This record gives sequence, structure tokens and C-alpha cells, in this order.
Amino acid sequence: MIRRLMQPPSLTVLAGGVGAARFLRGVVDVVPAAGVTVVGNVGDDMVAHGLHVSPDLDTVLYTLTDQIDEDKGWGVRGDTPRALERARGLGADAWFWLGDLDIGLHMARTGWLADGLPLSEATARLSRALGLGLRLLPATDDRLRTIVVTDDGELDFQTYYVRRGHADPVRSLRFEGAEQARPGPGVLQALAAPAVVIAPSNPLISIGPILAVPGVREALAARPGRCIAVSPIVGGRALRGPAADMLRSLGHEASPLGVARLYEGLIDAMVLDQADAGLASQVQLLGIQPVVADTVMRDPGVRRRLAAEALRAAGIAA
Amino acid sequence: MIRRLMQPPSLTVLAGGVGAARFLRGVVDVVPAAGVTVVGNVGDDMVAHGLHVSPDLDTVLYTLTDQIDEDKGWGVRGDTPRALERARGLGADAWFWLGDLDIGLHMARTGWLADGLPLSEATARLSRALGLGLRLLPATDDRLRTIVVTDDGELDFQTYYVRRGHADPVRSLRFEGAEQARPGPGVLQALAAPAVVIAPSNPLISIGPILAVPGVREALAARPGRCIAVSPIVGGRALRGPAADMLRSLGHEASPLGVARLYEGLIDAMVLDQADAGLASQVQLLGIQPVVADTVMRDPGVRRRLAAEALRAAGIAA
Repeated sequence: MIRRLMQPPSLTVLAGGVGAARFLRGVVDVVPAAGVTVVGNVGDDMVAHGLHVSPDLDTVLYTLTDQIDEDKGWGVRGDTPRALERARGLGADAWFWLGDLDIGLHMARTGWLADGLPLSEATARLSRALGLGLRLLPATDDRLRTIVVTDDGELDFQTYYVRRGHADPVRSLRFEGAEQARPGPGVLQALAAPAVVIAPSNPLISIGPILAVPGVREALAARPGRCIAVSPIVGGRALRGPAADMLRSLGHEASPLGVARLYEGLIDAMVLDQADAGLASQVQLLGIQPVVADTVMRDPGVRRRLAAEALRAAGIAA
Repeated sequence: MIRRLMQPPSLTVLAGGVGAARFLRGVVDVVPAAGVTVVGNVGDDMVAHGLHVSPDLDTVLYTLTDQIDEDKGWGVRGDTPRALERARGLGADAWFWLGDLDIGLHMARTGWLADGLPLSEATARLSRALGLGLRLLPATDDRLRTIVVTDDGELDFQTYYVRRGHADPVRSLRFEGAEQARPGPGVLQALAAPAVVIAPSNPLISIGPILAVPGVREALAARPGRCIAVSPIVGGRALRGPAADMLRSLGHEASPLGVARLYEGLIDAMVLDQADAGLASQVQLLGIQPVVADTVMRDPGVRRRLAAEALRAAGIAA
């Protein structure tokens, strides 16, 4: 039985996009949202046609406020493409899908940023307006962009991912602006929570940009509480997106063990799927406690049980 | 009888927004659109929520391609405000009305500008895509912004005009960036046309920014052909907008005579309304030929006759 905590725990989740958002739905089924802080990836932010788009933050926002288009995993359910189709009809090379409601949100954010507000404040306003129960913090308010180095040269993240369908072998990654970036307001404090969970997101391009902000990796390494990760790789495959191929092409093992190695020194435990139970002992050898669970969130029940298992591993009796 | 010319005349029209666009509909009823070049005002361009909006160019575009919302005089007929209402619902201070189709056009333009295309090329692409028959040239590709000095300080044009409903007494005007601005491609050539018409637009804030681009006023003063203006003031009042109050508060006479004085040295003739026929002799004294006509474009017939009269005054036998 899953028991709802009456007191908000102090829990922080490091999150990418779709996988993290689904995991977070499980988390807020198990613990009160008010006690949950999410540190979100901004490495795949982009300016599309003048509009500042934060795909990962928005996926968390839309998913946790039940506006998400479940089939796609991103965007607003039932949104219309009037503006986008007009732009295309006029000859614009509008390859990034933007619905009208989505555009309205980007307009609000872009206007605030133009007025000089930091992304964290714009995100807080959107969170309040949409009724997001948890606290969503961009990893940094500074400009940080994931650049994917391919045989065709350097690609910004969305060009690599959306436009070219993440088909290019990845030769390396870099996080433009990371060296100068500062953790967003509240981020370092959030990493000092009693429990930190790294969501089942791509460790290289979703969690990587968060860890690339100076001070974040160090704060996690020096954590006063527990930190655990949920593997986004099951049976050698990513639950979504190019994580497995990307891990392999960058010389890592496409398995929970490969992910655990990337997080060595940062996590105390890793939740891995039953399909990978055979790797538990090797994860253990890294000094990371393996926790075997059903990690494929095919329905709300599995999602909730996975969240409960992860929180238990993180020391929260959920 | 109005006779359609079979050969495109070489005619250039200096244009602001709504009044100019309505006048231009009359012009293309009388002469083939292919022979008409419009030099458009960009002083009231703005960036709204990240989107580059060119209100005067767009009003010409929409009006001449029969997409205009006739009741408002701007925007696309039947456009929806899904994105705008979303932005407002999220707390954005979205006071500038933008319909979804309009946003699509701004997205296309903003994307091209971000790719490094000049405004003239973006405008040419939009013109082609929408099937605009005439040639629409921004007065400059450089940044030029009309700043309205009021008792409450300096306001950008749209803040003065839309947000504050042009209610502030205007103490002075300045055109930010004008000194560094260069005439857009084709603009100076267009001013060397056999006939140039200054549309019935606000001489201070619609035509003023065009004349403020270095080289434009000089080219008009040295014109090889004829230049005429159509008065936007009838019986002491502007046909639309704040021109009359603005003329008065800046020390000019709110009459065709006041407008003629502003254009002294630049025009050979001025079309003024029957209501102002009494001023004809004073206009004449400025060395400007007065042409009395019905200038209130209340229906297509009047609009067409006014255009024919103006073109005749400009030396085109329409």
C-alpha cells in the first residue's frame, strides 16, 4: 500500500523532459507536490521565430498540470496550428511544431525576458498561472545551450533532435555558456534537500547540462542527504529518444551500469529495471545500491509504484 | 470616365498605414499595380513578445491583398486570438492585439530577420506569398523608431498610440536611429520616378520617419519628376488618428495649409478636400498647386476618383 505523507517532504528531482515529467506524475501521486522541487534542464531551450521556447520546462509544466498532449508527450492537448500553418504558408521554414496555445505561453515568457526578468521568474509566473503544484526551477538563468557535434558539424540541440530526427551519430557534446553560467535561484539550496532524485532522463543531454552548471555537480557530490537515480535505459534501449545510441557512440555502455558510471560519486542508489536485474551486482561494485523495480511507466499504477520505490531508495518513506 | 492604363506607369507612393492603404486601393483601381512602388513607414515597428511587427507595412499588405479587417482598419479579417488570450491568461501584459494568422506572419518575418535577412527581403517574401501586386519597400532596413516625447516622458510609438490611445499631448518627436539609417534597397531609385505621391497619412509620424532617413528628403527635393501630396486633414480634423491634435501641439496649423508647409520644397501640388477649398489660394502662395477633390474615402467610387485626381495632379493621365 502506498501511503500519502501528510507532511511535505523536502525532495528535489533533477529533470529533463518527457520521461522526467511522467516520473514526476508518479511522484506527486505519492508525496504532496508542495514539498517537491524540480531542477529543470534548459540546454535545449531555443528561440524559434523570436519566441523563447523551453521545451523541457514546458513538458514538466504541461504534464503536471494535465495539459500535455499524451500521445506526443509534449505540447498542449488539442492545440491548433493556425499561426504555424500561416507562417509555413508564407514560406517560413517552421520545422519546430508550435501550437497556438503553446505560442501564447512562449509570448508571455519572451515578453517577460525582454522586460529583463530572469527565466526563473518567468517560469515561476507560468507555474502559478497554470496551477503547478510543485516548484520548477531552471538549472540556470544564464544562457546555456547543448551543442551536438556530428559528422555534419555542430548542431544546436533542437536541430539535432527534432529537425534531423536524432539520426546523426553524436561525436561529442558541449554546453555552450556553461562555464559562465550560475545556478538559478534556489538550485543549490534544493540540492541540499534530504532526498534528491535524478529522474529517468537522458544522462548526457538532459541531466548533463544541469550538472554542467558550475557548482551543481559539486553540490551534489557534497550532498548532505541521499541522492538516487532512476535508469532511463532498460534492456539496452532508451525508453524514449536517442539515449542508448548516444551513450554507445560516446563510448559508454548503454545500460543502467553505463548510466551508473556517469553518476559515480553523485548517487547513493540506482533504480534499474527488472530486465536489467543481472547488472545489479556490478552497480553494487561501484558503491551504488541497486534497486530493482518495474521502470516502464506504461500506466499510472506502475508510475506510482516506481515513484514510491525511488523515494524509498532516497530515504523517504512513501 | 476612368481609363485603365495599359502600360504600367512608374509611380511611387510614400505611405503610412490605414489611410495610405485605402488610398492605394484606389490607386490600383486606376493604374496597374505592377507599376506602383510603395515606400512604407517603419517608425512604428516594434518587437512584441519577441515578434517583429511592422504595423504600417502589414496594413498595406493586408489591405491590398484583401485580407484586412475593414472594421478595424488593421489585422486580418476573421482572425482569432487564441495565442493572445492564452498569453493574457498567463498574466502577460499583452496590450497589442495580435491575431493568430497575424502572429504567423510575424513569426515568418522574425525568423527571417533572425537568419540575417534584411527587412526589405522579408517584406518581399511576404508580398510574393500573399500575392501583393505592387512593390512594397521599407523606407530603411536599419532600425528606426519613432519616439513620442510627452509630459510623461518618452514613449515608443505603439505605447503612445495603442496602449495610451494617443491621448498624451505630444511635446516633440524624434526618430531613433534615423541618423545612421540608410535608405532601403530601391528607395532612392523609386523617388526618381516620374510621379511620386505622398499618401494621406500623418505627415509627422507616418511620412516624417520616411523623410528622416538621410538621403530621402534630399532625393525628393531634387526629384526629376513631379511629387504631390494628398492632405490627411479635412476641415481641421484628421480622417483617422491623432494628426490634427499632434500638428497643433507641435505648433503647426491643423489644415492642408499646415501640411503643405511641412512639405514645402518637396511637392508640386496638393490635393485638398472641398471642405478646405478656401485654403487653396494660400497653398498656391507656397508655390504648391492646390487641387480640390473629395478626399473622404467613404466608398470605392470616391476612393477611385480621388486616386485618379491625385495621379492626374502627379502628371499621370489616369
